[in-house]
Amino acid sequence: MPTINDIAIELGISKGTVSKALNNADDISETLRKKVLEKAVEMGYEKNRVRKGLNKKVCIIIENMDYTEPTHFGYDIVMGFRKMAAHDNWQVDVVPMTIELQREVSYDVFMLEHEYQGAFILGFSLEDPWLEELKTSRTPAVLYDNSIANNSTVCYVGTDCIEGFEQAIGRLKELGHEKIGYLGGALGSHITKARYEAFFHAMKTHGLEPDPEAIGCSYFISECTQKYLPRLLKRGVTAIMCCHDLLALSTITECQECGYRVPEDISIVGFDDSPYSAYTTPPMTTIRQNRLEIGKCSYFALCSLQNQIAIGTMLLRSQFVERGTIGAVRKHELAPSRKASVQQ
Amino acid sequence: MPTINDIAIELGISKGTVSKALNNADDISETLRKKVLEKAVEMGYEKNRVRKGLNKKVCIIIENMDYTEPTHFGYDIVMGFRKMAAHDNWQVDVVPMTIELQREVSYDVFMLEHEYQGAFILGFSLEDPWLEELKTSRTPAVLYDNSIANNSTVCYVGTDCIEGFEQAIGRLKELGHEKIGYLGGALGSHITKARYEAFFHAMKTHGLEPDPEAIGCSYFISECTQKYLPRLLKRGVTAIMCCHDLLALSTITECQECGYRVPEDISIVGFDDSPYSAYTTPPMTTIRQNRLEIGKCSYFALCSLQNQIAIGTMLLRSQFVERGTIGAVRKHELAPSRKASVQQ
Repeated sequence: MPTINDIAIELGISKGTVSKALNNADDISETLRKKVLEKAVEMGYEKNRVRKGLNKKVCIIIENMDYTEPTHFGYDIVMGFRKMAAHDNWQVDVVPMTIELQREVSYDVFMLEHEYQGAFILGFSLEDPWLEELKTSRTPAVLYDNSIANNSTVCYVGTDCIEGFEQAIGRLKELGHEKIGYLGGALGSHITKARYEAFFHAMKTHGLEPDPEAIGCSYFISECTQKYLPRLLKRGVTAIMCCHDLLALSTITECQECGYRVPEDISIVGFDDSPYSAYTTPPMTTIRQNRLEIGKCSYFALCSLQNQIAIGTMLLRSQFVERGTIGAVRKHELAPSRKASVQQ
Repeated sequence: MPTINDIAIELGISKGTVSKALNNADDISETLRKKVLEKAVEMGYEKNRVRKGLNKKVCIIIENMDYTEPTHFGYDIVMGFRKMAAHDNWQVDVVPMTIELQREVSYDVFMLEHEYQGAFILGFSLEDPWLEELKTSRTPAVLYDNSIANNSTVCYVGTDCIEGFEQAIGRLKELGHEKIGYLGGALGSHITKARYEAFFHAMKTHGLEPDPEAIGCSYFISECTQKYLPRLLKRGVTAIMCCHDLLALSTITECQECGYRVPEDISIVGFDDSPYSAYTTPPMTTIRQNRLEIGKCSYFALCSLQNQIAIGTMLLRSQFVERGTIGAVRKHELAPSRKASVQQ
């Protein structure tokens, strides 16, 4: 473990200056402070009180996700984590994140600077610079729905979508559906890819053949509903699996606007069981992620990493929640005229 | 929650008899005791002191695995679990299991009978009757290297073999290997299948084409070394990935007996990093499962299940351990005469 002295020698500056930089003193330039922090991270320096576990501080870094109200997707996740951490007397700071801030300071430097012993990271996309840094970072991090290979200080926590898709497609098959389409997000992110693959896996498990023309993925929900949905309907799908609830909601609305009744003419399944999903018209059938459990598990995962137990992946069970957007296939009710009215 | 009275009514016997059966009294026939226990499980009965958490007893159920000596594979796993459980004042019984015992009594009845609040289950194969019962069981169970779908009271704990295979094959590729063979166990079990798939996945990741003729899987190690190994060598493989260390050890020995030098003529990689693997000749290159961590994680997984946090999968990072059984490809040293001497 390098000391303040080692850092001072390495940078050719005084021990006092290093100490000032590490303790956020006012009488030191921002440039020098940053230089010292970066060198400290590079050398694997840890502050004494952090290393000894005297400074019980962790953070929840959150981006692209609302979490302040109970109706927000992130609320229960943050709550679950906080509940567990409170038992062990951790201070938990919630840090809203931006790409700009990530460009200004590296992840390890940020963590050292604020004396955080670990982070629970939510809502990162592949564009986030810290996602690249996490491949080699040394400060424990638990990532919700993002996976980093070969770094034993990082753990991926998520929901097992394979099981959820298998349950949903199994139920659709029971209801007579065989032509099942899929609408999803762009395949750039870890989780959209996982759900996309889960769809194919579940179709195969149930002996159903996916129609390549009845699958559409886009970063934009509007592209899914305007461009792909008409194609799916044209291919004669009787059910559509959507990779998240917001997309499912847009799909329900778009189908209804085109004169398709949900679920009489078309069945639609979402994913997440977002706080609003029970209150759509009709109430949405979806695959539940238990957000409180995700938060709780993530806390444990972080503790494990801090204790050098290298959990890489932790998957919660998903749960198929049947509400009002799926029904039995009734082919005779699908009048050709209605089909033709779909926006092309 | 059903009471003793409910069970009595259901069976048409007295409350006292039910109580005797549930408390292992001597003056009740074995047949009646079993009948009561089975009905109690069926109705979802839990003893008061178990339900209130006053009876802190869990068990480690172990089969097909030695664990009593530090040189045994299961020793550290059991130790890791015990260490964590001791902190929380749990009594941990280690229960050696047989298929016969499983046929005599169902899993849930066994757990109710012994007042265990959960089980950590090691070494089960697909032939074990309880593995079938675990699909619908209600007493929390953590399974090492076995996965059960759609039961939120069961969790699978294991080591991420994909990452390990990717590291190993990446290193072999650096050393010039492209023709890499695979020897594995019969594909009946969850874990042999996972490792088999991890091999293909890792080959693909590194842009290598697996040769279908250079792959052999069998329940019997001798079949792998006597039947498949000669075929692999004939196909000109320069490296062999084995799905566990014992198979790797037999492969090393067999190669050496046939006049192949390890690693000069052929590179061999195991999986597990068993206690003996550092002491083979030459010391074995392998993929490590951290057994102490497996035990520790499994304890947490069990606690989570007991608290209705439905973790389904927990995977630890694997670690590529390079020792003496892999080396750079040196094709010119592979004399044709030596090849011919391999037992066919």
